[in-house]
Formats: sequence, structure tokens, C-alpha cells
Amino acid sequence: MSLAALWDSLLPIGLAAETGGYRRYSFTAADSGCRDWFFTAAAERGLRACGDRNANLWAWWDCPVAGAGQMPAPGAIVTGSHLDSVPDGGAFDGPLGVVSAFAAVDLLREQGFSPVRPIAIAAFCEEEGARFGVACLGSRLLSGALEPRAARQLRDGTGVTLAEAMTGAGLDPAALGSDEELLGGLAAFVELHIEQGSALDELGAAVGIAAGIWPHGRWLLDFAGRADHAGTTRIADRRDPMLPYAATVLAARQAAAQHGALATFGKVRAEPGGVNGISARVRAWLDARAPDEATLDRVTSDIGSSAAAAASRHGVALTVSRESFSPAVEFDRALRDRLAGALTASGIAAPVLPTGAGHDAGVLAAVLPTAMLFVRNPTGVSHSPAEHAAQPDCETGVTALAAVLAELAGR
Amino acid sequence: MSLAALWDSLLPIGLAAETGGYRRYSFTAADSGCRDWFFTAAAERGLRACGDRNANLWAWWDCPVAGAGQMPAPGAIVTGSHLDSVPDGGAFDGPLGVVSAFAAVDLLREQGFSPVRPIAIAAFCEEEGARFGVACLGSRLLSGALEPRAARQLRDGTGVTLAEAMTGAGLDPAALGSDEELLGGLAAFVELHIEQGSALDELGAAVGIAAGIWPHGRWLLDFAGRADHAGTTRIADRRDPMLPYAATVLAARQAAAQHGALATFGKVRAEPGGVNGISARVRAWLDARAPDEATLDRVTSDIGSSAAAAASRHGVALTVSRESFSPAVEFDRALRDRLAGALTASGIAAPVLPTGAGHDAGVLAAVLPTAMLFVRNPTGVSHSPAEHAAQPDCETGVTALAAVLAELAGR
Repeated sequence: MSLAALWDSLLPIGLAAETGGYRRYSFTAADSGCRDWFFTAAAERGLRACGDRNANLWAWWDCPVAGAGQMPAPGAIVTGSHLDSVPDGGAFDGPLGVVSAFAAVDLLREQGFSPVRPIAIAAFCEEEGARFGVACLGSRLLSGALEPRAARQLRDGTGVTLAEAMTGAGLDPAALGSDEELLGGLAAFVELHIEQGSALDELGAAVGIAAGIWPHGRWLLDFAGRADHAGTTRIADRRDPMLPYAATVLAARQAAAQHGALATFGKVRAEPGGVNGISARVRAWLDARAPDEATLDRVTSDIGSSAAAAASRHGVALTVSRESFSPAVEFDRALRDRLAGALTASGIAAPVLPTGAGHDAGVLAAVLPTAMLFVRNPTGVSHSPAEHAAQPDCETGVTALAAVLAELAGR
Repeated sequence: MSLAALWDSLLPIGLAAETGGYRRYSFTAADSGCRDWFFTAAAERGLRACGDRNANLWAWWDCPVAGAGQMPAPGAIVTGSHLDSVPDGGAFDGPLGVVSAFAAVDLLREQGFSPVRPIAIAAFCEEEGARFGVACLGSRLLSGALEPRAARQLRDGTGVTLAEAMTGAGLDPAALGSDEELLGGLAAFVELHIEQGSALDELGAAVGIAAGIWPHGRWLLDFAGRADHAGTTRIADRRDPMLPYAATVLAARQAAAQHGALATFGKVRAEPGGVNGISARVRAWLDARAPDEATLDRVTSDIGSSAAAAASRHGVALTVSRESFSPAVEFDRALRDRLAGALTASGIAAPVLPTGAGHDAGVLAAVLPTAMLFVRNPTGVSHSPAEHAAQPDCETGVTALAAVLAELAGR
């Protein structure tokens, strides 16, 4: 079973022909296809696979010395990532970590490796938050960072709740919630992921080790103006929410540049949305990230002040609400050092990098030692079909991951 | 049959409970309800009603001296307006002209009036362009301003063509096109409409006469950038189309203010639309209007230059395409003078006003003497549920329209 065969069976699922991007949203047909793929890959390898209470998938390489039964032996080493995508995302963000995990198990077996701890491959549910708006949904629920009651009431863009979507997919939303029993059996999580920038390419390295994750969050800015006729309403009489929104987009870029941070508006809704009408309301979502929380506070505070001033100038009401927040994560230093040691011993040079992107490994860092491996992305592009990892780098990623798993599960 | 009864039967159709606004889009269930209402109102008055080749509705008060048969006698006086709405529009924009037309027929009959020319009440199809994007669709087709072949291929937001939608509603798209036979029988069109501003309110007048319509059009600005990850792409590496869009919104306002014109962005689409992604593409629609075509050219040229400069600064490609254009309209001076004379004789003071809004009367002005009556809108708000006309003003509008019809069809 080759790396190519794993990819070949996964790549057609959820591919949007018109854009070349992926649309793998939770509890849709594409998601179901990804889940089937996961169970097939596990079965082909004789790995015991199951879903957990939070719609995350697990494939267990049970450890013979750890006893029988449904419950895993304690001290398991987990690897994996996620299979869902942003709208029109690339092929690698998420899937590379799951594919590489199965391939690393193949490689370890070829090498005759016998684990003394169980190894688990996980695929976490809705890491991107593309359907229900909360990033790392499955790992947040698993680790208790998100209340199951709140999660069940999350709605997608068409008004369907998470509970309804899960039920529709044959899953039980009543079971959602922190899973101490499962977590108690885990010793560490190592997530392999395509790099979402070009630092490795600039450093000439195929793989890297993550230092930490920038604090980041999402804010909804709701500009409420007054619907009116675009052809007859005098400028002085307008309360057009599009204008303070536009001013805020520019202010956000300026604040981010000034503070060495990032701020992006990628989603905006104008209502009612007629060409010949002034909008009643513009809702826009800010994604902001910074190297530390104090800087992030300064950036979002600057953007909020600019938005409020622009709204006031145009007679528009503004409400700002934080929809999600992920504090700064520094990955476990001891685990990181063991990764570095294993890679050096395998002859793989792996520089240490920070990242602005959230990951399940960042969420699980609150309850478990976690670490991340990055694989070079020569385009530097992410959340786009232009995202890319070359095959030799993917193979180096698998070699690196196998070395790390051997180090962690071999003693 | 009272004015109130006409309104009571029309008001529930297409009302969106959550916003209090109307969603009456062509060839939908709400549109079908409006069409049924029109036929019922005609039947209650013994008016001969029919649809024309372009999905416009006609109710004929045939003139006894004009002979029998299906074809109207020549020299008919047409009044009416439209029944469709913008998204979440108000109750009066369009329907006030149709309701007032039926009520004016009632009033003329109460007054014992006998027309010497036929009187027709028309309800034109898709005046707002809310479904297929072309304003005054029915009157443009009727008058030959829009090619039937191009019209049939228009698509709504879900990809349904006008031809498919018409077929679905039991109408024949093959019949679309300029109707010389129908037009040849018409002598004049007088459209009564709620004012879409507050000029009448400021002048203390219940009704007014339109001088003309500002030239206006719709332009699509398509900003093509590069999808990327909002959390990892350095500012210098971004090609975010949201930024030049935002700069263009502010530039449009500035250009409009500088030239005494109007410019509005009420519809915008960011793709792919993920919160944690930089947009691949932002498409935005500009509605621009000015007192004359030279000024409109200057305004749209300024906006286009600003958009191009901003796009270039951000490494974003821009294409601008004009989706529709309506030249300046000056209503027929002789017809306007006859309206003014009839209103003065009825004791109704009616100031003459320009307007920035397009109307079927503006389109038909190219093939027929046309005129417009406005009814006071104390809020000045339009294309919104806040649009309003007080009942006494609506009654004055009916009185004025009846006086005008008596003047035009009485000799």
C-alpha cells in the first residue's frame, strides 16, 4: 500500500471541478466520503477504527503488551490531522497529516518496528470551521474547550444546527462533550501539516518543527444602516453601512502592518443585497492574529475604534462580537526536543518555526503534550488550490513522522 | 370596491415576515399571486385583462366607439406601474401605481365619465431587475430596447435562465420581443409612483409631476486576487481583492459628492468567502446616477481610475463591465403641460421634480409620450419597508390620476 494509493483514493472526494478546490464540509456527502476513506485505509492496515463522541475518527495500532478489550492501552501516541477543508481549499491542508500518518505506519512496519505504546491516527472533525463557524470544532469538544450545549446550537449558513446535521449523518449529538476516558489514554499528539507560508522554502528545508501558534480570533462586525433607494437618496440623507465597512477594511490592514500582525476580512454579507439599493446592514468577519496576546489586543482595539468612528460618521450602528479566540500556544518543549533529536538522528534537518495558523494540535496543547511537523509548501499559498507540497517532500515528511513515532512509541 | 379593498388583497402577497419587506421576484409564487390579484381586480371591474408577449399585464377599459374585437382601439391612454419588488422592498414602490390605476377607474365611473379613447392599466414585468439583473425588463422588451435573444439567456442568482423561469410559469419565452402592434395602439403612458425621496414632503405637496429621469447605470467591478490563508500569509505576499474594493467604495462616495451625483455599492460577493481565508475574488456592483450624461461619465471614470489604481497597488486584476445603462429622459413636455393643467383645474398643486430613479415610463419614453405623477413619501426612504405614503396622499394621487385620465381619454 503506497503513499500514491492513499492519495489517489482521497483526491476525488469533495473536489469542485469549476475551481479545482475542495469543499469538504462537516456532515455532507463529501465528508461522508472522507470518513469512508479513513475507515477503508484503517481496515487495509488491520487498524481498529472508530468514531469518538465528537465525530472525530480514530484508527488504532493496538499495542500487544497493553492488554485486550475495546479501550486503548494508556500512554498512546497520537498522530493525524483533519480531512475537512475551507471553501475551495487545497488538497494538502489537513489530509497531508492523515495520509502521512497511515504511510508512516506502513513504513514503520516495513522497518519491522514494534511499538511498546499504542499508536493512534486521528482525523478531527471540522478543523476549519467552514460549516459551523468554530475552528477546531472536534478537538475543542474533545478537550472540553467548547460546551456541547453551545456546539449543538451552532448553525450553518442555511440555518441547520450542528445537532440536526449530526443526526442527519447518523451520529448522536447528545453524546458530544469532553472525553476524559479517551484523553486519559493518550500520552502525546504530533500533527504533521503542510506549511502555510514559505519559510521552509526560504530555508531550503523539507520539514520543520513548530515552535508555537500565534494567538488569534474571529470577530463579527455588524454595521446596521438604513435600506434606501440608490437612485434617489441624497448623500446627506444616507446611512449606508457599506462605507464604514470599507473604511474598516483599510484600517485593519493599516493596524496589522503597524503592529506586525495580520488582519483579514474574507467574508462579508450585504443585506438585502440589491444592486439599486443602499444596504440595510453589512456584516463582516475579521480574522486577526499577532505574535502575542498584547499585540493582538492592540490591533483589534485599533480596528474596533476605527470601525466605531467610521460608523458614527455615517449614522450607522455598530456591534462587534468575538466569535472565537485561541490564546497563544507554545508547544511542549520536552516533546519538541525529542522530535528534534529523532529527526537529527534520521539525518533530517528541521528548523523550528512559529505559525499564525490555528490547528487541532494547538487546541489539544491545553490537555496533552503536543507538537507539530511542517512540510515545505513552495508556493507559500494556503487555503487555495494553489497550495502545494512536492512528492519528495511528502515522502520526507512520512520518514520524519515515522522516526518521531518510533522515538515516542518505541519506549 | 374601495382603495382599501384593493390594498388588503395585495398586501399579504410576497411579504417576508422576518423583515417586513416584500420579495416579489418574477415568475415565483409571489409573482403568480400578484398576477392573480391583477386579473381579479380587472374582472371585478369588467375590464378585459390579458398578458402580452413580454409577461406584462394589461387590463382594458375598452372604448365603446372604438369597435369590437380583441385588438384595442388606437390612441389608448395607459396608466399603471409594476408589482415586483427589490429584495425586502416596501409596499408602495410599483404597486401604488397599479392600485391607484384601478381606483382611478372606479372614481371615473362614479363621476359618470365616459372615455372617448380606451384606457389601459398595465403592470410591467420585473421593473426592479431583482431576479434577472436588468431593470425595466418587461418595458425594455416591449419597446425593443432589449433583444429577446439576450433576455432569454439572462440568469438569476441560482443559474436559472429567464427562458426556463418563464416556461416554468407557463409562459412562452419564444414570444418575447418588441410588440409594434400593441405599441401602435397606445397614445400615452402616465405612471403614478411613490416619490423615492422627500422633495414633495419638503415642498408640502401631496403629488408632483416628474420632469425627467437622471441617466444611470450598473457596472460590475471584478477584483481578482489570490486566495490564501488569513493566518499565515505575510502582508507583503498578499493579493487581497477586498482592499481595492474597500478603497473603491470610499472613492465612489467621494466622486459622487464632488460631482453632485450618486454612487452606491449595495451588492458585493467575496469568494470563496471563508472567514480565515484571503478572498480569491471580490465582485461588486456599482449603481451610479447623475443629472446629465457628461457628469455621469466623469463620476464613473473617476471611480474606475481609483479602482484601477487601488487594484494595481495590491497586485489585484480588475475588470469593469457595464451591465446596464439608461440615458437621460426628459418627459414629453406637451403631455406634462396637459397633466399640470388637469391638476390645476382639479385644485391640486403639483410641483415639477427631477428624479434619479429609473422607471418603465423612462424606458417607454423612447417610443411613446410618457409622464409621471409622484405621491409624497414623508420618510423619503425607498427600497425599504420604511417607505410610506399616507392614506390621504394616496387618495389625492387617485384623484389626480383620474383627472389626468379624464383629460387625456376624454377627448
